[in-house]
Amino acid sequence: MAKPVCVVVGIGPKNGAAFVRTFHEAGYRVAMLSRSTELSSRLATELGGSDAKAYACDASSPKELTATFEAVRADLGEPEILIYNAGSGSWKGFDQTTAEDLDRSFRINALGMMTAAQAVLPAMRRAKRGSIVIVGATASLRGKPMTTAFAAGKAAQRSLAQSMARQFWPEGVHVSLLIVDGQIGDAGTGEAGAPAGQEVKRLDPRDISTAALALTRQPSSAWSFEIDLRPKNEPW
Amino acid sequence: MAKPVCVVVGIGPKNGAAFVRTFHEAGYRVAMLSRSTELSSRLATELGGSDAKAYACDASSPKELTATFEAVRADLGEPEILIYNAGSGSWKGFDQTTAEDLDRSFRINALGMMTAAQAVLPAMRRAKRGSIVIVGATASLRGKPMTTAFAAGKAAQRSLAQSMARQFWPEGVHVSLLIVDGQIGDAGTGEAGAPAGQEVKRLDPRDISTAALALTRQPSSAWSFEIDLRPKNEPW
Amino acid sequence: MAKPVCVVVGIGPKNGAAFVRTFHEAGYRVAMLSRSTELSSRLATELGGSDAKAYACDASSPKELTATFEAVRADLGEPEILIYNAGSGSWKGFDQTTAEDLDRSFRINALGMMTAAQAVLPAMRRAKRGSIVIVGATASLRGKPMTTAFAAGKAAQRSLAQSMARQFWPEGVHVSLLIVDGQIGDAGTGEAGAPAGQEVKRLDPRDISTAALALTRQPSSAWSFEIDLRPKNEPW
Amino acid sequence: MAKPVCVVVGIGPKNGAAFVRTFHEAGYRVAMLSRSTELSSRLATELGGSDAKAYACDASSPKELTATFEAVRADLGEPEILIYNAGSGSWKGFDQTTAEDLDRSFRINALGMMTAAQAVLPAMRRAKRGSIVIVGATASLRGKPMTTAFAAGKAAQRSLAQSMARQFWPEGVHVSLLIVDGQIGDAGTGEAGAPAGQEVKRLDPRDISTAALALTRQPSSAWSFEIDLRPKNEPW
Repeated sequence: MAKPVCVVVGIGPKNGAAFVRTFHEAGYRVAMLSRSTELSSRLATELGGSDAKAYACDASSPKELTATFEAVRADLGEPEILIYNAGSGSWKGFDQTTAEDLDRSFRINALGMMTAAQAVLPAMRRAKRGSIVIVGATASLRGKPMTTAFAAGKAAQRSLAQSMARQFWPEGVHVSLLIVDGQIGDAGTGEAGAPAGQEVKRLDPRDISTAALALTRQPSSAWSFEIDLRPKNEPW
Repeated sequence: MAKPVCVVVGIGPKNGAAFVRTFHEAGYRVAMLSRSTELSSRLATELGGSDAKAYACDASSPKELTATFEAVRADLGEPEILIYNAGSGSWKGFDQTTAEDLDRSFRINALGMMTAAQAVLPAMRRAKRGSIVIVGATASLRGKPMTTAFAAGKAAQRSLAQSMARQFWPEGVHVSLLIVDGQIGDAGTGEAGAPAGQEVKRLDPRDISTAALALTRQPSSAWSFEIDLRPKNEPW
Repeated sequence: MAKPVCVVVGIGPKNGAAFVRTFHEAGYRVAMLSRSTELSSRLATELGGSDAKAYACDASSPKELTATFEAVRADLGEPEILIYNAGSGSWKGFDQTTAEDLDRSFRINALGMMTAAQAVLPAMRRAKRGSIVIVGATASLRGKPMTTAFAAGKAAQRSLAQSMARQFWPEGVHVSLLIVDGQIGDAGTGEAGAPAGQEVKRLDPRDISTAALALTRQPSSAWSFEIDLRPKNEPW
Repeated sequence: MAKPVCVVVGIGPKNGAAFVRTFHEAGYRVAMLSRSTELSSRLATELGGSDAKAYACDASSPKELTATFEAVRADLGEPEILIYNAGSGSWKGFDQTTAEDLDRSFRINALGMMTAAQAVLPAMRRAKRGSIVIVGATASLRGKPMTTAFAAGKAAQRSLAQSMARQFWPEGVHVSLLIVDGQIGDAGTGEAGAPAGQEVKRLDPRDISTAALALTRQPSSAWSFEIDLRPKNEPW
């Protein structure tokens, strides 16, 4: 039987790569969507071409996203899992934030997420199963001066995730949101295996991806919509 | 001495007109910005042309907004108060919401608000005083299937309002957000003067505008950022 | 016609005294309930005995509270307004907080509030009008190590206020909660009348009490449940 | 090496029994604390006396709780995990809720939780590891008329959990809160293994306990404080 398909949108060296490795290891063929394929191509080679495939795609462009999901579908089949990890922002105060800054954040965090989800939902709804995990941040919950554009995009993304969850959970599609609260470190820097008592101030991307995998495995009598993740030494 | 200037963005027959009347009555010259000036021109005539002036302006266009605020400034002087009452959305499920629906909601609710605020902030910061009241809704707090686009825009707007408040309160500019929770009725349908025991299921626009006026008058030792307004018979 | 009656529970030199003065000035006869009557007796003398009356009452004792409200009713008539301003806590970490600390916070913040509200509700429900304003704090919204007992009591109080509001708003009784976020200064230290540009780091009790008075005057088409109050220079 | 110890406070036929079975299966010796030992004794017999032990203990009594934790320590050793599952409430409107109703809810939901946590914290802090999972409910987040007493106790419990988490996470003790949102069904009624498309309206206690086990296994670079759990067909 063919392996199930997982799409990861947004492939950076930290979270993105960790999502790819974790879902690959869990038995998924992984489609990697990112603007540049420099990193994702290396990952594809490392993981063996047939089970991890790189696609060049600007997640802020609905047209590119839709076309790329068509290609994924043709190459690998209908995705069972979507991890929306794209996201960026400019770090400027409210008065310095331009219409372009705000628009960019909105497109990558909110519009791109909606477009990607709309690409996978029809098949998930037909199958009455599937999982969409969205990677949010502390900024999803509140705006601060230096996160003006980023937080606005993330707040819109969270609202969209709520609307989608309320509409599609009853049909069997699990939509959830990770609130990643803290600085992200390098993979392997978390405490897994570290001596008790050691300070842990950064999120290990492997631990974030494991939390996402766990969400996709929750039984439908006890689904989570929103879970926060932060290092034990993070103040909150 | 010249009367102070209040700008109301978004002039519909309910909230918009009520904001105009209430601030006019409170001694402000009111600039009315709306796409169509049919209603605002009638209001200008009714209130006497010198103290209420209608401007045609699409709040989803930063360019038009910026130019219109220039005109307001030239005509009436620097605004002391900005009421951002523009807002709209499409009422469709997540799967039916188009990129255009989402973009429109984002532009009118979030980008337009940021642009209008950026137009009045420099003078307010120089004066170390001023008040910006943003008209939000229940959807500012959560997304539901049929509010997919509207709620995303309102969530982004609320996040922007938080970023702006945290940056400019310390400089003396009061930024606040009204969470209008319920159906809005016709002006005069509220309970003010009505017999006790009568059901009140709709918000009276006059009462909303009075709440906004009260916010602009709060002393700076006890400013509110967010207040909810709903009729006594609204379930919540 | 007899002046309407307002009961203030919790009379300290800052908020309590300010509530008394503000509602007295607004035309209410004020019943002052506090454990010690040293301050409230001075206030009674200052304001003229017939319109401000001091009662010794420990708000953490339901029995004393109930008996005192009986006395208020006999002396002054049925209260139209209740301001629940009692509240205290111990400032200890979670591990240092004793059962007694927690119980005390719970009794003064939550049980006392419920008891006081239950004493005034029957008459308010018969009249289909009345206003109950509860004085909360930042700790009403979240627990931190050094507010362990206080925050637990305030969280319980907020939950009770929500239950009460949802039950009695439709009957015409306005229940609301002030989230006082910041240090409270001396009366008169707020910015009212102060030069623009001056830092304001403390809440002026007079401004808090004015906000409470405004809540009691909201028309029932646009009632607020929860409003935050903080000085313009408070970080949040 | 001796098996690690898990204490479950509150042993009913649904959640309590599921926590016991799940942690027993995961390799823990389980101490079961409940007022009546009728059910827990049967569980002890079923699971083999040496690895599951029943204790009669009223969780609303700090004295009984403290003494019982002493006994657990003597019998089984220091607990590595505490599941606080005790909780109850009366279902009456605000006006019908008595001081006794409120006090009972407060004692079982808040005071009992603090007391149990204080009994296990010293050893956890010395070991720089341990996990405390508190079972909350939708009522932890908001009060409604018919949950007056229950919600107040649960809100206090959540506030205490926040205070405790903020204080002890940095020391290596993971404190977390499950928001169980929905009706709880019988064990085995969830969808695990059920055909896709089947409605799932109740939480399966086994799925709740599995979520708790997963929390205790989170690596400390990505700890969750609060996670919501609800059946896919639950409206929210």
